[in-house]
Amino acid sequence: MRSDNKSLLLDLYELTMAAGYFERERNVRAVFDLFVRRLPKNRSFLIAAGLEEALKFLKDFSFGQEDIDFLKKKGIFKDSFLDYLKGLKFSGEVWAMPEGTVFFPGEPVLRVSAPILEAQMVESALLNIINIASLISSKAARVVLAAKGKGVYDFSLRRTQGMSAALAAARSSYITGCLGTSNVLAGKLYGMPTAGTMAHSFVMSFHSELESFRAYTSLFPDNSILLVDTYDYRKGIENAITAAKELEAKGHKLKGVRLDSGDLARISIMARRLLDKAGLNYIRIFASGNLDEFKIDNLLKNGAKIDSFGVGTNMGTSCDAPYLDVIYKLSRIDNSDGSIQPVMKLSKDKITYPGKKQVFRIRAKDGFYLKDIIGLEGEKIKGKPLLEKVMENGKITISSPLLDTIRVLAEENIRCLRPKYKKLKARGIYPVSLSPGLKRMIEKLKKDIALRN
Amino acid sequence: MRSDNKSLLLDLYELTMAAGYFERERNVRAVFDLFVRRLPKNRSFLIAAGLEEALKFLKDFSFGQEDIDFLKKKGIFKDSFLDYLKGLKFSGEVWAMPEGTVFFPGEPVLRVSAPILEAQMVESALLNIINIASLISSKAARVVLAAKGKGVYDFSLRRTQGMSAALAAARSSYITGCLGTSNVLAGKLYGMPTAGTMAHSFVMSFHSELESFRAYTSLFPDNSILLVDTYDYRKGIENAITAAKELEAKGHKLKGVRLDSGDLARISIMARRLLDKAGLNYIRIFASGNLDEFKIDNLLKNGAKIDSFGVGTNMGTSCDAPYLDVIYKLSRIDNSDGSIQPVMKLSKDKITYPGKKQVFRIRAKDGFYLKDIIGLEGEKIKGKPLLEKVMENGKITISSPLLDTIRVLAEENIRCLRPKYKKLKARGIYPVSLSPGLKRMIEKLKKDIALRN
Repeated sequence: MRSDNKSLLLDLYELTMAAGYFERERNVRAVFDLFVRRLPKNRSFLIAAGLEEALKFLKDFSFGQEDIDFLKKKGIFKDSFLDYLKGLKFSGEVWAMPEGTVFFPGEPVLRVSAPILEAQMVESALLNIINIASLISSKAARVVLAAKGKGVYDFSLRRTQGMSAALAAARSSYITGCLGTSNVLAGKLYGMPTAGTMAHSFVMSFHSELESFRAYTSLFPDNSILLVDTYDYRKGIENAITAAKELEAKGHKLKGVRLDSGDLARISIMARRLLDKAGLNYIRIFASGNLDEFKIDNLLKNGAKIDSFGVGTNMGTSCDAPYLDVIYKLSRIDNSDGSIQPVMKLSKDKITYPGKKQVFRIRAKDGFYLKDIIGLEGEKIKGKPLLEKVMENGKITISSPLLDTIRVLAEENIRCLRPKYKKLKARGIYPVSLSPGLKRMIEKLKKDIALRN
Repeated sequence: MRSDNKSLLLDLYELTMAAGYFERERNVRAVFDLFVRRLPKNRSFLIAAGLEEALKFLKDFSFGQEDIDFLKKKGIFKDSFLDYLKGLKFSGEVWAMPEGTVFFPGEPVLRVSAPILEAQMVESALLNIINIASLISSKAARVVLAAKGKGVYDFSLRRTQGMSAALAAARSSYITGCLGTSNVLAGKLYGMPTAGTMAHSFVMSFHSELESFRAYTSLFPDNSILLVDTYDYRKGIENAITAAKELEAKGHKLKGVRLDSGDLARISIMARRLLDKAGLNYIRIFASGNLDEFKIDNLLKNGAKIDSFGVGTNMGTSCDAPYLDVIYKLSRIDNSDGSIQPVMKLSKDKITYPGKKQVFRIRAKDGFYLKDIIGLEGEKIKGKPLLEKVMENGKITISSPLLDTIRVLAEENIRCLRPKYKKLKARGIYPVSLSPGLKRMIEKLKKDIALRN
């Protein structure tokens, strides 16, 4: 097994069900929709993300000998099934919304058509990947909206829920408008900007604050952002001014100061005043410390003189709503005899929509998004189809867009949402309806199910 | 670079500060404490976890050529520093609480003593690893307490915040009393039990529910748990009874039924009644569907006849409190001239404790934990020291305990907490105080800092 093989990252029941399909339904193909059932707290819209990683997972999906040996030891699988798994590759077709697309509950973000065994086995990994990526892109969009044009940086690495979450947080927050991340590995893997300042420990490791500022600025004369709250704010800002003046004498400019505690609105106003009085109006003020979209909104309303925000834990864990209610549901069976069987689930509060579906987005004349219609593939509906083919026969059929291209798409998508959907608290309900064709299919199926049972 | 090299998973400022130390303080050693500043919502205690992964990270810490090339391209680091990074290994000493130990805010869970550059560069990764692992162990402990001896399984893979969180969730929840996980990769990596049932999609892929039950039980005659809510509960349970009787005729026993929606208390009582009436009192009732400790508590209070709970999202994301306020703070500098300098931070609400510390736990005569004292290493204090040496000169000095050993330790630790600390909502405040030696050091330092600035 390759050390990074993640193909066993599935729920045991996906394997036992696959074993069931292997015995009886090997040639049946299935369609599964991945979608979010309802909006999380405070959210009026979501942003699709995670497709690149999802496709990479599907492309690489395979079991190594070590995986097979492990499964064999469980003693519940037949050898014929394990042999089948050993040679297995994902061979399905995938349609998906491009990363950066605004989407809403009930709309398939990703649709898998594959032999039912394969489609079933990749369920949990797909959900896991799309969940964290879209969760953070949707949260970060709110933080960026609250910052009203001021810069936002992802500082969440230390508190995200594990390492893959840290990488997803950096990438997804950049997609929806953050300017960069403190996470160096994300910078390397995704070619995205990295940023950083200094920590209290650095200041404390010197005999005085000023000494620590001098040490840092001598090494990064054009790139220093000095942390001024280790001991006392006023003194800290004065020390930063001293260091800035010394830099000026050497032909350099201090980039900024960072505020990391206390009443950030009040302190930023004081800092701006002291800096300007010293003729240092080019020095930027960065703020950090337990920030989120609500706090940023308040700070700006209170006249804070802050140029950029470093946002960590609350954004990187989507703290107010730490998961999307994302599900992956069977919507159609293509039997080996060629017959097609749309399926749906009728459990209370958990109804799903049948058939192979497409999402159509209608614009108003002023360019804003007006409404979405969930319809059947091929159904004649005016509006832009949002799902695109991204994989066929297990091969990726698109070239991965650059991260900056995704970022532009997200920006445009968010711009096309009317302001009522972009408030921090009040939630506008964007209209999503079902097409006539889909409605007819649902009614027919309900009757069939009632007859059968 | 190895494809799984995670050493660049650090914040940029850790590298720029390291570059600063490299120029001027290369031979200085530092002590950092990793601790939680305050308890998250609803929690009265935390359980340490993640040490094994943290030690593995430190042992493997090194930069590959690809990493160095990436950093060089940033254009802010001197070649001498990059050369130094290239040959770097973590060479420090680490003390830590064993995984499974109950701990409280302010107490160092892990303490690093190392050349200050190294200690600084591993900060974010250590925080990240300990955060997710201890977050879930602490949450799962609550779920297990609420289940009052009924089984709890981790079903969170699909909604955890990324793949590393899924693995941590499976492992950490097992540490604090869950019986297993649905996550097959976790089963393989950690040698822990895996469990599963079936999904609605499996039922829906057959022409009738009964047909799907027969297909599944014929393959797993002694291991089937049938999902009975796809169409209609009563009918579903009746179909499960039919399948169970057919299994009995072949000399097998149906293991269980799973309830996944609706009023689980009421439905479980009905299911138990129907099963018992059919002479199938051996069939267990599993329940799942958006469960957490509060819902489980309510179900049991309402007389639910449930034998085991599958708990997913709410446990795997620690939904009510999705992060620990975990920090990593400089507490001492050992200068190259041999002098020792304890340090502390005085920022408002962010005060830290200086010196090389130990945590002592005092028991009451009845065996329960009475109080903890944070003291200085070597200080004479009655009580069990909780921090143990786990790494020296960058080499792990303990043999990793078996997961089941950690589990036993956690169980014993939780048993020794008085009931008032184990309530789901009311929070008892466990007493943690500072030793006389540590108090004296703090007072002296405050005076010194006031003089210096």
